[in-house]
Amino acid sequence: MSQAEFYPNESPQFAASVAQLKGQKVAVCGHLRPDGDCIGSIVAVVRVLKTLGIDAIGINRDEVPATLKAFVGDTPLILASDFQPEGHVAVTVDCADKKRIGDRLIELFPEVALNVDHHISNKAYAQQNLIIATASATAEILAGFYMDLGYEIDAITAQALYVGIATDTGQFRFPSTTAATFEIARRLCEYGAQPSVAAHELYECETFAKIKLLQNFLNSLTMEFDNRVCVGLIERGVYDETGATIDDSEGLVDYARSIAGVDIGVMIEDRDGALKGSLRAKNPFYRVDQVAKLFNGGGHACAAGLNVDNSSIKEFYPQLMEALGKHLEALGQPE
Amino acid sequence: MSQAEFYPNESPQFAASVAQLKGQKVAVCGHLRPDGDCIGSIVAVVRVLKTLGIDAIGINRDEVPATLKAFVGDTPLILASDFQPEGHVAVTVDCADKKRIGDRLIELFPEVALNVDHHISNKAYAQQNLIIATASATAEILAGFYMDLGYEIDAITAQALYVGIATDTGQFRFPSTTAATFEIARRLCEYGAQPSVAAHELYECETFAKIKLLQNFLNSLTMEFDNRVCVGLIERGVYDETGATIDDSEGLVDYARSIAGVDIGVMIEDRDGALKGSLRAKNPFYRVDQVAKLFNGGGHACAAGLNVDNSSIKEFYPQLMEALGKHLEALGQPE
Repeated sequence: MSQAEFYPNESPQFAASVAQLKGQKVAVCGHLRPDGDCIGSIVAVVRVLKTLGIDAIGINRDEVPATLKAFVGDTPLILASDFQPEGHVAVTVDCADKKRIGDRLIELFPEVALNVDHHISNKAYAQQNLIIATASATAEILAGFYMDLGYEIDAITAQALYVGIATDTGQFRFPSTTAATFEIARRLCEYGAQPSVAAHELYECETFAKIKLLQNFLNSLTMEFDNRVCVGLIERGVYDETGATIDDSEGLVDYARSIAGVDIGVMIEDRDGALKGSLRAKNPFYRVDQVAKLFNGGGHACAAGLNVDNSSIKEFYPQLMEALGKHLEALGQPE
Repeated sequence: MSQAEFYPNESPQFAASVAQLKGQKVAVCGHLRPDGDCIGSIVAVVRVLKTLGIDAIGINRDEVPATLKAFVGDTPLILASDFQPEGHVAVTVDCADKKRIGDRLIELFPEVALNVDHHISNKAYAQQNLIIATASATAEILAGFYMDLGYEIDAITAQALYVGIATDTGQFRFPSTTAATFEIARRLCEYGAQPSVAAHELYECETFAKIKLLQNFLNSLTMEFDNRVCVGLIERGVYDETGATIDDSEGLVDYARSIAGVDIGVMIEDRDGALKGSLRAKNPFYRVDQVAKLFNGGGHACAAGLNVDNSSIKEFYPQLMEALGKHLEALGQPE
């Protein structure tokens, strides 16, 4: 074992947890609506456990999104609905709350053996919880463990970990991007990660329908509160009209937030009467999670979601603006 | 001096060139329509020369784009039209061809003392030419020189170099992104570069006009050649109509290229009868530079530009499609 360079405290704990998994069947579970960090982390844990002689399989409630399928390779990864437990022990990755693995897996696994995550809000619901909130991604934590412990990192594992980091940092743009993030990215390249190949799969395989959805969304952008809030809409029927899927709305709200002077970007979707809202602030001062809480939602200071059933954009829009207006007025301006 | 780790051959040559500049006034010139690598490299060279006791000033034909102004800091950087030469010696950065510095500077500087660049097409027009085509950005080369030579890198220099690399790699997405790129990014963070602060300036200060231009462009997208080519237009009058500037068209063609199955993305702009075309291929197999050459243009295998005067999109579109069709037919499919 090489010296623990990245996580001198946690890497030995990870090794101890892995040692306890020996001889058991392991189910590596990610969260519903999986993203790059979730899929990358599942792939990386399953593969490394297998190199250590442990019988492991990845499980997710939802399908691997189209842009991430290429990174699974020959890793066993199945839907929760297809999973037949045979005394499996559960490991979770990138799941701040056990609820995030979905109802069927919660039922199958009353206990979770190991929980590896980078969300500061993680509820430490497992027997062993390795939560490192300074890491940009769960994949960054896993990569650090593997490098500290001298575990075998093959090219598919390296690419999966790289994808987790690249997507969860918004391509090295979010404040979580540190010197350590780049150091791990560098080493993953040496283990076989290919940044431009990853980028091709992630960003150059868009559907024309998604582009039409984006065009429709941009066309809807409206400024509120002296241009401090920018709101974009996906009206009822737009998914059908454009042929886009619900996954295609991922990231649209960032266009609303990207405008100079805008403090909060908003997206409101009407999914046949079930409204979903996304709120994104540039500055954690704005606490958009508090606004989301008023509408059956929550999240982080800079990124939150809300849910309103049996409504319409016409009805909900003024309600949300009233709540945002009160919130902005109560807060004033950041220093 | 630390051991030359990045560029053992070129770093000593750079040091020798810098030694020859001592006691002279130096004009550090970038290219017209400057991008992040151009501005970052100018800033980094001017600042380092000054720390070495050399009187240096940055000069550019065109204004620093709005999204890059924050990275100049207190670095002296002026327009070519405001420059009063006093026996200055010229250094160029990121300029593959001397023509790229613009007419006034070409006239003022019959000779260029030093030419640092990463374009493989660089014409080696200076007394000393340091061309490293494997580097992702001119800023990556300069950062490597500075680290090899132990030059002083202050926080503004580190951030400027980081911006050059981040923008010229498309945020670490292009094939030029290597393990060395990440290693240099890591060290720049340690010298004070702040990736998320850079990203905020680069990507979260868009104008509403630019968003409207994007929306207009997306609305124009058309598929050609069985969806292998996607073409977007900026029709005459659209800049006025949206309030966007010519700089705002930067990057639009990438949306055309981003669609699954598309091999070549195309943008055609009508600037009051002067047409500009941008061609972007996913695979260097396609040699879009050869197509661009037919229309008074050129560039790289994957990224080229063309220029047609006194025409209209209506007239030019079928001409370009004919040329692309012949090119695709002659090439066949990549292996």
